Amino acid sequence: MKKAGVAILGLGVVGGGVYKILTDKREFFKKTQGLDITVENVLERNVERALSLGIEKEKIATSIEEVVSNPNVDIVVEVIGGIEPSKTFVLKALKSGKTVVTSNKELFAKHWPELEKAAKKTKAGLFFEATCVGGVPIIRTLIDGMQANDIQSIKGIINGTTNYILTKMTYMGYSYEEALKEAQKLGYAEFNPTADVEGFDATYKISILSSLAFNTKVTIDKVYREGISNVNIKDINYGKEMGYTLKLLAIGKKTNSGIEVRVHPTFIKSENPLASVNDSFNAVHLVGDSVGEIMLYGRGAGDLPTGSAIVSDIIFALRHEDFYYTPFRNEEDDKSAKFQSDFNTRYYLRLTVQDKSGVLTKISGAIAKSNISIMEVKQTSFVEEGKAEIIITTHECYESAMRKTIDKLSQMSEVYSVDGVVRIED
Amino acid sequence: MKKAGVAILGLGVVGGGVYKILTDKREFFKKTQGLDITVENVLERNVERALSLGIEKEKIATSIEEVVSNPNVDIVVEVIGGIEPSKTFVLKALKSGKTVVTSNKELFAKHWPELEKAAKKTKAGLFFEATCVGGVPIIRTLIDGMQANDIQSIKGIINGTTNYILTKMTYMGYSYEEALKEAQKLGYAEFNPTADVEGFDATYKISILSSLAFNTKVTIDKVYREGISNVNIKDINYGKEMGYTLKLLAIGKKTNSGIEVRVHPTFIKSENPLASVNDSFNAVHLVGDSVGEIMLYGRGAGDLPTGSAIVSDIIFALRHEDFYYTPFRNEEDDKSAKFQSDFNTRYYLRLTVQDKSGVLTKISGAIAKSNISIMEVKQTSFVEEGKAEIIITTHECYESAMRKTIDKLSQMSEVYSVDGVVRIED
Repeated sequence: MKKAGVAILGLGVVGGGVYKILTDKREFFKKTQGLDITVENVLERNVERALSLGIEKEKIATSIEEVVSNPNVDIVVEVIGGIEPSKTFVLKALKSGKTVVTSNKELFAKHWPELEKAAKKTKAGLFFEATCVGGVPIIRTLIDGMQANDIQSIKGIINGTTNYILTKMTYMGYSYEEALKEAQKLGYAEFNPTADVEGFDATYKISILSSLAFNTKVTIDKVYREGISNVNIKDINYGKEMGYTLKLLAIGKKTNSGIEVRVHPTFIKSENPLASVNDSFNAVHLVGDSVGEIMLYGRGAGDLPTGSAIVSDIIFALRHEDFYYTPFRNEEDDKSAKFQSDFNTRYYLRLTVQDKSGVLTKISGAIAKSNISIMEVKQTSFVEEGKAEIIITTHECYESAMRKTIDKLSQMSEVYSVDGVVRIED
Repeated sequence: MKKAGVAILGLGVVGGGVYKILTDKREFFKKTQGLDITVENVLERNVERALSLGIEKEKIATSIEEVVSNPNVDIVVEVIGGIEPSKTFVLKALKSGKTVVTSNKELFAKHWPELEKAAKKTKAGLFFEATCVGGVPIIRTLIDGMQANDIQSIKGIINGTTNYILTKMTYMGYSYEEALKEAQKLGYAEFNPTADVEGFDATYKISILSSLAFNTKVTIDKVYREGISNVNIKDINYGKEMGYTLKLLAIGKKTNSGIEVRVHPTFIKSENPLASVNDSFNAVHLVGDSVGEIMLYGRGAGDLPTGSAIVSDIIFALRHEDFYYTPFRNEEDDKSAKFQSDFNTRYYLRLTVQDKSGVLTKISGAIAKSNISIMEVKQTSFVEEGKAEIIITTHECYESAMRKTIDKLSQMSEVYSVDGVVRIED
């Protein structure tokens, strides 16, 4: 039977999950995979944590050098997160010829080419299923399940924290602050929630996923990013009345004018399968020119779901010694790719205006003048003396045109303020 | 650049799709995969069909011998379907060391071990993603995406024809016959629809999928099968009122008393994500002990979706020369597996009974006496003079106990007939 040794760098939530799966299931993997996988080293400053997981003292390494020079270690699992020291550790492992399996989306989104170059040099494997959507095999699907397809679009709910918050706001009527507080209490959101709620985490992930989908490097500076911290419960509720559900959607699209990638709060039709993906669940919807629509759904985070992705990569690496790489990673391809930052989408607007006759016509007229065609206009119920609220949805238009129009509307004497702007995806 | 030659056996719907993808996308695959893939042979008796697809005359083989002795052919795609001559062709290809990619679920469900043995002998690859759920990478997910999991259950809508028919019955009020006729008109159902509507197709697929999920050979005789040809629109409608949607579900479960595999019309809660999988779409829901719930959704059939799965396998085979096999295919594992045919589930019953007081109590009493606990009982609206209709749903019980109970109920003087029996899965 083939034997393999694993080192785990970092024993946080995910590292603990990986350790648990590998040790609890050693016999299971012998039987089902013909592989005897053991944890040979862990690198974790918090020795108490390591010991509490049942790890023998002599397996707790004190430096990365100890790990990469250990001949019993074949595969290094990096689950520390962040750029440093992860990057240094991963590069050292690759340089010493160890296969690396990582869940580090930030590292991968920012330094993928450098990591891949290092891996190719020593023919070490480099696996990253766990960077996106937890245990859902979305990376394997993109690399090994959809090769026949010129992928047209990828749309996903790929951050569990924000999806939990938006679900609570949508179905429990919580304010953003209340929902965030509950998410923090349950461990779904960090004490400093910025990376999740401002869309950075989703940006890293969609950068990785759309690079694979579109066969070109989509760096994070190509991703338009807007988080959920300014989402108003009012807009969620008006959207509901109109048949829309608000989600933080990560979107990658191939358009005639280039690749367009963005992360922002988005209204989707309530019958869209993504609309019913709730709480901390994730889902990714893909359209390929051969396969048509595909959707994958599951838990996007957590010790065992993410551990499942890591262990899946470990086993895949061991069963395919001819380590393989994403083939698009050459400079020419990347240079020839065109990106479109001025994207084309539908919009929802909420305005506070003067409560007098003719205002609605005047506003509609101003929008029409900008060559944006209106889909629906409606006045909501009473706001306050002298003030009325108007909801407008539009057909597709360019973001740049919409921004100019919003500026123009804001300057009209009939308009007190433009309070809500939400993009709509069909 | 690596070159590879493909032969396609059978130019039906799927064969045509494979040919189209491989020829239309030759440049795309050079660029994205670094592979130059050409179709070197087709084996198709209908020469007109081959020529109409644009295939050069000299590539149209007249015998399997011609194909397997062609040194330019590396991979043989079998998309003829059925047992013979497919089986002979596939075995000849494997014996001559050619990798085989097939969409033939019947062949695979019935003769997998024999095919795998032949492949191992010559180290030829054997790939079968296209046997189940069209272009949705469910086989890749089970083999290469969920290895970390002891899979607890697999539930799927894996036959597009029956799902189309049930969708029309559910949402358009069609009778079974009307819905079948429309499905035939649109090409979703064959002139002889038996394989689909009687659940044979779903049986082949769940036999393959549950073999992979449970790491043991689940032969088709282990699968309980019941089709949709006796489904009554009345039960669909009563189910709807009670919050259930009727689907032809293929179910594989690991229970304490063994593996249980079945295909039958099933009520699922309308909020279950599988309930909104409509028309010819397919979906598979999996529960793994590490990853939790996962669902995959997409088109289960069609030239390009199934072609997408075939081409995905071709590329996977070319990128992983260390062909790999499912590791459970040894006799001991198969012998140690326990199966449970007397499954445990909830039930919905519809009875026509005498319209007089006390009947409902008497029937409930008879059911309770069989140690089956009732969840809900209700009398429906007027049926005809002297007759009433009763709907009963139960908690979980064994199938054997329920059958005995139904016999007992049928013999009661108060009961005219037991007209509807539908299993319920939560």
